[in-house]
Amino acid sequence: MPTLVMKFGGTSVATLDRIRRAAKRVGREVANGYDVIVIVSAMAGKTNELVGWVEETSKFFDAREYDAVVSSGEQVTAGLMALTLQEMDVPARSWAGWQVPLKTDAAHAAARIEEIGTDNINAKFAEGMRVAVVAGFQGISPEGRITTLGRGGSDTTAVAFAAAFGAERCDIYTDVDGVYTTDPRITAKARKLDRIAFEEMLELASLGAKVLQTRSVELAMRYKVKLRVLSSFEDNDDSAGTLVCDEEDIMESNVVAGVAYSRDEAKMTLLSVADRPGIAAAIFGPLADAGVNVDMIVQNISEDGRTDMTFSLPVAQIPRAEQAMAATKERGEVNYADLVTDDDVAKISVVGIGMRSHAGVAAQMFKALRDEGINIKVITTSEIKISVLIDRKYMELAVQTLHDAFELEKA
Amino acid sequence: MPTLVMKFGGTSVATLDRIRRAAKRVGREVANGYDVIVIVSAMAGKTNELVGWVEETSKFFDAREYDAVVSSGEQVTAGLMALTLQEMDVPARSWAGWQVPLKTDAAHAAARIEEIGTDNINAKFAEGMRVAVVAGFQGISPEGRITTLGRGGSDTTAVAFAAAFGAERCDIYTDVDGVYTTDPRITAKARKLDRIAFEEMLELASLGAKVLQTRSVELAMRYKVKLRVLSSFEDNDDSAGTLVCDEEDIMESNVVAGVAYSRDEAKMTLLSVADRPGIAAAIFGPLADAGVNVDMIVQNISEDGRTDMTFSLPVAQIPRAEQAMAATKERGEVNYADLVTDDDVAKISVVGIGMRSHAGVAAQMFKALRDEGINIKVITTSEIKISVLIDRKYMELAVQTLHDAFELEKA
Repeated sequence: MPTLVMKFGGTSVATLDRIRRAAKRVGREVANGYDVIVIVSAMAGKTNELVGWVEETSKFFDAREYDAVVSSGEQVTAGLMALTLQEMDVPARSWAGWQVPLKTDAAHAAARIEEIGTDNINAKFAEGMRVAVVAGFQGISPEGRITTLGRGGSDTTAVAFAAAFGAERCDIYTDVDGVYTTDPRITAKARKLDRIAFEEMLELASLGAKVLQTRSVELAMRYKVKLRVLSSFEDNDDSAGTLVCDEEDIMESNVVAGVAYSRDEAKMTLLSVADRPGIAAAIFGPLADAGVNVDMIVQNISEDGRTDMTFSLPVAQIPRAEQAMAATKERGEVNYADLVTDDDVAKISVVGIGMRSHAGVAAQMFKALRDEGINIKVITTSEIKISVLIDRKYMELAVQTLHDAFELEKA
Repeated sequence: MPTLVMKFGGTSVATLDRIRRAAKRVGREVANGYDVIVIVSAMAGKTNELVGWVEETSKFFDAREYDAVVSSGEQVTAGLMALTLQEMDVPARSWAGWQVPLKTDAAHAAARIEEIGTDNINAKFAEGMRVAVVAGFQGISPEGRITTLGRGGSDTTAVAFAAAFGAERCDIYTDVDGVYTTDPRITAKARKLDRIAFEEMLELASLGAKVLQTRSVELAMRYKVKLRVLSSFEDNDDSAGTLVCDEEDIMESNVVAGVAYSRDEAKMTLLSVADRPGIAAAIFGPLADAGVNVDMIVQNISEDGRTDMTFSLPVAQIPRAEQAMAATKERGEVNYADLVTDDDVAKISVVGIGMRSHAGVAAQMFKALRDEGINIKVITTSEIKISVLIDRKYMELAVQTLHDAFELEKA
């Protein structure tokens, strides 16, 4: 029988009632002829409770014990989901990560999946079991201890199972009904996308669209797993949600797929830095060591052997960055004239695989912003993305303007 | 290093604060030179919450899923206890039942322990770990699924570990400070026993003294595990609590160790039953099938081929018993003239291994009760126990009278 992976997040299994609603969806897919692997998160709030206890117990806690405690939440949901399915006469059983086994490395609290054993679950499918309910977010280390996968772990678990079992599709049930051309709270014209390419989703995810964790999209792209994002709070038909898929599976697409934004950005400029080989390393090495997530980097043309170096970073990391820069100056490693910080900017990006073959997208973007009097402070581009930093007060206007300019409301 | 097993029940680990207090006790034993195996229950209330969810989900639930859900509570406490010990610089780690492994049969929700693997934990002790914190109440089935041990499972886990690791002693921390000569709520003269023999404890436990589960005492007796019951809410020195031990380890003991009672008893008499071979089986077989826990059985002398058969049972099981008896009469299997039920009796027992060598205990007991005008309705005796049924209204008086008569307030 064809296999389907269905993943339900914490809000979708927050109560026994919601578990029942999720189980009904699973039952429908079983009736459609699928063997189903269900990946569940902990009931909403449970993981926070467990993490709170660990943090209250120990400030610098042993991540192995953290994992032993925190992984229990998914185990509970998996058992309850299996019982609910059995009540509906669907043959089902639960599996903890170690029972599958889902083997990971030993990087507790942020483990990486190494291998998923398919024999145990396939043997049960062969015996007539129709649904394997698997506790998400967890695995077993080479030492035989429980590991957890860190942020977005349940999405990643789901995609990994879809890859290992050759599933026809991996459905991610969440509290939104798909991926939009932009945030519907910013413009009512935002339109749900029926399909989006992996590369586009990756750019959107890392740019702040919180629907899917970047890590799960990367994995899906590598193993060609068709991912569908859809709402567990609405009735869906087969065309519901958004399918994240290979570029070739999208017949005709807009040049620009979506407009993303990131609100709390800052811009830092080192004025009049000596432009010598290795200067970039001398600046960004210490920043990385200080845990600063530098995003965009722009270096101006050198004049008289000196240049200005500008980069963007999250607002919250400004103090760390300033401290790191002051230290490099003190140590005589980077001699800059001044450090100018602008903590009042936002990042706007247009993303689309169509850009590869369409020239002029950047020009169209800059013109649209100019027409609204929005000044561009920094520009970076990749093959399928153009990002700009602008004053934060123009953020909403910029998103609306670009959404209109690229006619994203039209399919 | 010598090994000690310490078990903490749900109320002793109900909050992070109580876990800290328990961890301090463990730390003291480590400082005393012991390698310690700590067995923990779920935080008070957690197991009930989980059981509630299972029962709400499914009326006739799959016990394997019940076990998967319910066992998670102990896993959480084990991790938190290990973290707390680490905070106190005590090298510790947690173990789920399956990690030990504690192997059981496949009787989910009421599994029996088959084997405890000691290699994994001993290897860690050899590496310098001082405390193994083990989730109580759980194990792993031959099929690789999580099992739970049923009522009293954590006490039983503790004793089984003490046996497997050859522990010097198994300390059961609970909310009372030991085993008493009788219930202190009934007489202020009740005295805490420093020592009690396994056989005595078994009789007391099954007679309603709720300090230790019968099953764990049986196991301790079989494997000669010294059991100590003590309070986790008081400061204890080495002589604290009550030591449950082999008879030979008790130098001098009273003839009677304690007086136990059981309040909600009933007495049933079948009048004028044909006294033929197999009549007892014809009566008590159907009662057992109906789930009636028959305790005392008395058969009067036969007259003219007919006899009266009296037995005791818990009050709550009267309807079931009456129904079963009516059915046997209808089927013509047991032809009794009448069925008389007395739902207003209590059972009083005196227990002591000293009775074996002391005649006259029964006579002394009956005389003491007679002197208070308490009528005895049924008597049964074993080697180390004499039990009587009396009117329930005399229960407290009978306990006080017997406690005085055997001078149990004196050590």
